[in-house]
Amino acid sequence: MTDVVQVSKVRCFDGWQYVFKHPSETVGCEMTFGVYIPDHKQNDEKLPTLFYLSGLTCTHANFIEKSGFQRFASKHRFIVVNPDTSPRNVNIPGEDDSWDFGSGAGFYVNATAEPWSKHYRMYSYVVEELPQVAAKVAPIDNHKMGIFGHSMGGHGALVIGLRNPQLFKSISAFSPISNPTSCAWGIKALTGYLGEDKSKWADYDASLLLAKYDGPERHILADQGAEDDFLKQDQLRPEALKSTSKVQVEVRMQPEHGHSYYFISTFIEDHFTHFAKQINH
Amino acid sequence: MTDVVQVSKVRCFDGWQYVFKHPSETVGCEMTFGVYIPDHKQNDEKLPTLFYLSGLTCTHANFIEKSGFQRFASKHRFIVVNPDTSPRNVNIPGEDDSWDFGSGAGFYVNATAEPWSKHYRMYSYVVEELPQVAAKVAPIDNHKMGIFGHSMGGHGALVIGLRNPQLFKSISAFSPISNPTSCAWGIKALTGYLGEDKSKWADYDASLLLAKYDGPERHILADQGAEDDFLKQDQLRPEALKSTSKVQVEVRMQPEHGHSYYFISTFIEDHFTHFAKQINH
Repeated sequence: MTDVVQVSKVRCFDGWQYVFKHPSETVGCEMTFGVYIPDHKQNDEKLPTLFYLSGLTCTHANFIEKSGFQRFASKHRFIVVNPDTSPRNVNIPGEDDSWDFGSGAGFYVNATAEPWSKHYRMYSYVVEELPQVAAKVAPIDNHKMGIFGHSMGGHGALVIGLRNPQLFKSISAFSPISNPTSCAWGIKALTGYLGEDKSKWADYDASLLLAKYDGPERHILADQGAEDDFLKQDQLRPEALKSTSKVQVEVRMQPEHGHSYYFISTFIEDHFTHFAKQINH
Repeated sequence: MTDVVQVSKVRCFDGWQYVFKHPSETVGCEMTFGVYIPDHKQNDEKLPTLFYLSGLTCTHANFIEKSGFQRFASKHRFIVVNPDTSPRNVNIPGEDDSWDFGSGAGFYVNATAEPWSKHYRMYSYVVEELPQVAAKVAPIDNHKMGIFGHSMGGHGALVIGLRNPQLFKSISAFSPISNPTSCAWGIKALTGYLGEDKSKWADYDASLLLAKYDGPERHILADQGAEDDFLKQDQLRPEALKSTSKVQVEVRMQPEHGHSYYFISTFIEDHFTHFAKQINH
């Protein structure tokens, strides 16, 4: 059994914000994650659970400290689980050299290129290991799980949600990297983690996955700040997220807003409402 | 005219979170402060304004990033101004040696003891200079101002509010240092800033000021986490805040809560509601 250790526990609204760490088999290093658990009955009550994926340079801490999500997790009585953004300290040469590749920038892929393939397996970590590890410490209703995220984590949420509809019944995002195969951040990351062969990249591009998605119907909510500098640099490309017969994509351009947690905190309530609607569909 | 320079501006809810800096005449160094300005009419509309004072080790940033106050400043259409907690980099030997004295720990007093008396004048800074400086950049209704704060800043809010009822129509606090003349933090700070003569300390002790308060009637709201370690160490002493014929003190012990911004974020809404009630009294 995986050894999950409590790092901290603090009261916040009608629930507890925890941080845990555990040795991850998937990525081969110690991983840290946050779990917010609303007050619940002491019997076997299970609660709907949202997984949140953070953006470049973030750890588990940014979302916990800055988004204000606990107000709505408490109100709706949803568990929220949020992992770190990459393996850490795995002794790969150059792992800490870039802010948009390596540490803090796992891009939620399973790397196949050396020297990254052993540790940089954040896709499998989020899909397979994290839900099971989190279920050891929180009463997760695994029939009512959703996923959302910000920027690189918005990309991760879209990709993981679209590829695993049986696992995640709801998807939403803040300023997601929507078309990584055609933006500078994505090309750098996918080349580094997957190699030069672009045919291998398509499974990690939300706009390409959307076009061929054939699972149960989905309504994806995405909020995007209209004054986001990364939008202007063409890193995000929300216009590439096109609705299909199976997936309604609702991109809301938010005037005057940027890319920061001030933007996330402004609209976080709507992403909880969205999840509530999807799981009660 | 004081030269106020904009450091940053970011959209948050229906308003803007600013940070400004200016050379302060009162404390003799550059000071940084936050101002949240909700959207308002472009004519001469003035808005009610809350001043927030932070606790030990904080800068202007903690409250802005972690409390989630902007949700309620936006909703009520209140301006919020929050200064740094001390002068910085004023070349006093030892100014950075302690986390509870000197930099980050001005205690909102006017120091009279050397070598602190020239710069450590946070009482006058908050009462006299900051409202005027902030009024240059925000449409403050100076007939509808309130003050609140956390820990050392809760002490500051109580002391400044009780000594200046003409200026601040509302007072509230999170886990305030309520009786600094009889707790370790307060004794260290007041000895250092004011000298050994304890008769000089009374003007900076909220519980002593309450007993002799003779201004307009006040209702003070104070939230205190029941599991706050500093409460258990007898640093806060909320039991010393006793209601009088002039002042109703409502101390709410909040079970399971601690001293952090998770606690503040949980109850921040009530402090905005409190201010709204006081100014519409």
